[in-house]
Amino acid sequence: MVAISSTEFISHLKVTCPTLLLDSNKAIANIDMMAAKARCSGVQFRPHFKTHQSAVIGEWFRERGVTGITVSSMAMAEYFANHGWEDIIVAINVNPMKIARINALASRIKLQLVVDHQEALDSLESQLTQDIGIFIKIDTAYHRTGVVWTDREKLFDLANQLLKSQHMQFRGILTHAGHSYAADSIDQIKSIYHQTVERTNAVKQLFMTAGFLQCDISVGDTPTCSVVEQFEGVDEIRPGNFVFYDLVQHSLNVCKPDQIAVVIACPVIGIYPTRQEVVVHGGAVHFSKDVLKTNINKTIYGILANWENHHWSGLNQHIYVEKLSQEHGIVHMPSPEINDIHIGDLLLFYPVHSCLTANLFPHYLTIDGLSISHFQSNG
Amino acid sequence: MVAISSTEFISHLKVTCPTLLLDSNKAIANIDMMAAKARCSGVQFRPHFKTHQSAVIGEWFRERGVTGITVSSMAMAEYFANHGWEDIIVAINVNPMKIARINALASRIKLQLVVDHQEALDSLESQLTQDIGIFIKIDTAYHRTGVVWTDREKLFDLANQLLKSQHMQFRGILTHAGHSYAADSIDQIKSIYHQTVERTNAVKQLFMTAGFLQCDISVGDTPTCSVVEQFEGVDEIRPGNFVFYDLVQHSLNVCKPDQIAVVIACPVIGIYPTRQEVVVHGGAVHFSKDVLKTNINKTIYGILANWENHHWSGLNQHIYVEKLSQEHGIVHMPSPEINDIHIGDLLLFYPVHSCLTANLFPHYLTIDGLSISHFQSNG
Repeated sequence: MVAISSTEFISHLKVTCPTLLLDSNKAIANIDMMAAKARCSGVQFRPHFKTHQSAVIGEWFRERGVTGITVSSMAMAEYFANHGWEDIIVAINVNPMKIARINALASRIKLQLVVDHQEALDSLESQLTQDIGIFIKIDTAYHRTGVVWTDREKLFDLANQLLKSQHMQFRGILTHAGHSYAADSIDQIKSIYHQTVERTNAVKQLFMTAGFLQCDISVGDTPTCSVVEQFEGVDEIRPGNFVFYDLVQHSLNVCKPDQIAVVIACPVIGIYPTRQEVVVHGGAVHFSKDVLKTNINKTIYGILANWENHHWSGLNQHIYVEKLSQEHGIVHMPSPEINDIHIGDLLLFYPVHSCLTANLFPHYLTIDGLSISHFQSNG
Repeated sequence: MVAISSTEFISHLKVTCPTLLLDSNKAIANIDMMAAKARCSGVQFRPHFKTHQSAVIGEWFRERGVTGITVSSMAMAEYFANHGWEDIIVAINVNPMKIARINALASRIKLQLVVDHQEALDSLESQLTQDIGIFIKIDTAYHRTGVVWTDREKLFDLANQLLKSQHMQFRGILTHAGHSYAADSIDQIKSIYHQTVERTNAVKQLFMTAGFLQCDISVGDTPTCSVVEQFEGVDEIRPGNFVFYDLVQHSLNVCKPDQIAVVIACPVIGIYPTRQEVVVHGGAVHFSKDVLKTNINKTIYGILANWENHHWSGLNQHIYVEKLSQEHGIVHMPSPEINDIHIGDLLLFYPVHSCLTANLFPHYLTIDGLSISHFQSNG
């Protein structure tokens, strides 16, 4: 069913405004799948919590044996520390200006930071009062942050600095193969994984030569972690997006539509049959402006899901959000579907990028009617 | 000065994480400019508050004589009603599923809703218990929502429905000439204004013929309201973005860089001279993913501002945010500027779309050190 009549939906979930719906069974199945793969490979599963940002959803991971997590800001680390997480990597280059918060947090949990620059290590060294773990960020090919994996001189310099440190314990090297998002095929995503393993292991050898006895390798973007069956050559994986998946992951063929665990429910507020368009309340402040280029070279912001038996499923590729303003979404919807649409009906859309969409909503509403709040800040 | 040394900035404002800075003098100058233009033209100035979403900033408007405002959701209307605003247009097609909230709000303020569909009027008619004002949304050329201005049959039908209504008072017609954002020149923006006036007046004639004695014309997008000197042929303007302006408006030549009243302050967390790039903490959850295409056909997410004497000014066109992930911003910065950058320095970026950027931050920090919170929800 394409549209949900307002009376049905409202009586069931009381949804009258743009709402982020969560199917907890789908999310838990995604968690189970990734946890099982990590277990089979004997690697630590340290999921990135930036996608869901929620203490409640974090518990679903804990119930499956997860003890260490990844976050992307100090504020998010503090939030999860306040919810009982005691082993956290903040997987973004450290900003030493936050030294007071770093010392405070490191006094109560096992805090691990990421560094790729000598100035940052110098600054930490002179101001740390607590022990912290350090991962050196390595750029294996993505070119966002990290020491280029072939830059032996810089790697040796950082290693030597760490060998002399009072409060910083070298933990290992960490990379994010974000270029997997630009891959053309599953084979190419797998090649990126193998290249990452090869290059991080070369860097590990260098650190062992420099005098360290231990050097963990931490990797993990959702595309490679979803398609690789056996995580060989690494110690830890840190995927995040897989908990919800989204249209980007689907376009990469790393998930099926039915694995996408969140949809944006939007009320219809305009119907324009001659334009083959309906307009929903649901705009850039709900979807985010992240776009997907489809295989017919359209840029879109969401694709319609079906609603049957109180669950969503399938993809209606021909019905999509084609424009967004702040609160309006313009949906391409041809006949015959548009003929059955009424003002106030709800349409469910898969998000292009679930991390950004989830960040925009103050809470999730599960299809069982449970409201789940999440962290909200951006420091 | 391109970068602000962390010690200077921290001692002044205590900024250590991505922060939305507001220069209240620039915002107030923008408000004064638009209020004066409206006054000279004898039209009502009913600013759209979706850009700033803040009760405190709202007071700056009230102090300049504003009594009626525009918002883009019922939740935002409730927020501003709670802060003393008693004359509000919710300028998005009504969603009749919110009838309980509509009746509740209409019982305490002068509430005006926007409609373009018979079903919506039917639904309101049967459920309203309070008096509300109705504007009919007209599509003069933008093709987002609204009755097409030439669709006489539909316009007459809606007029007849309203003439018989118990609780709905017809107030007039409302349009948003959002296609002004795609204009190539100031002249084209002015033409769009004049076309809008011509078409809305044709529709007004029709409503007067249908039997109404009064029909206000409400228009107002920031580009046309910024460049038109005299608002002839309309009763009310509803611009919103002008309070802050942004790079989109600057690219349309409707504002000067020094009128842009908000910047995103981001700490430097990575420096990569061989790539001519620095990386800041400041990503899609701070900037939004709205993009601007520059005149050299680059897509960018922000452009660097200078910082001198505790104020920002100017545009460094050659230093811009070229990529965004959730928390990272990748900044193109060639020599010589990159040679003076240090980890922890702050960089200030003008936002592409200030409405979306402001929506992402829980509060503003003025350059005088004042924290200003704003409405946060998206229902």
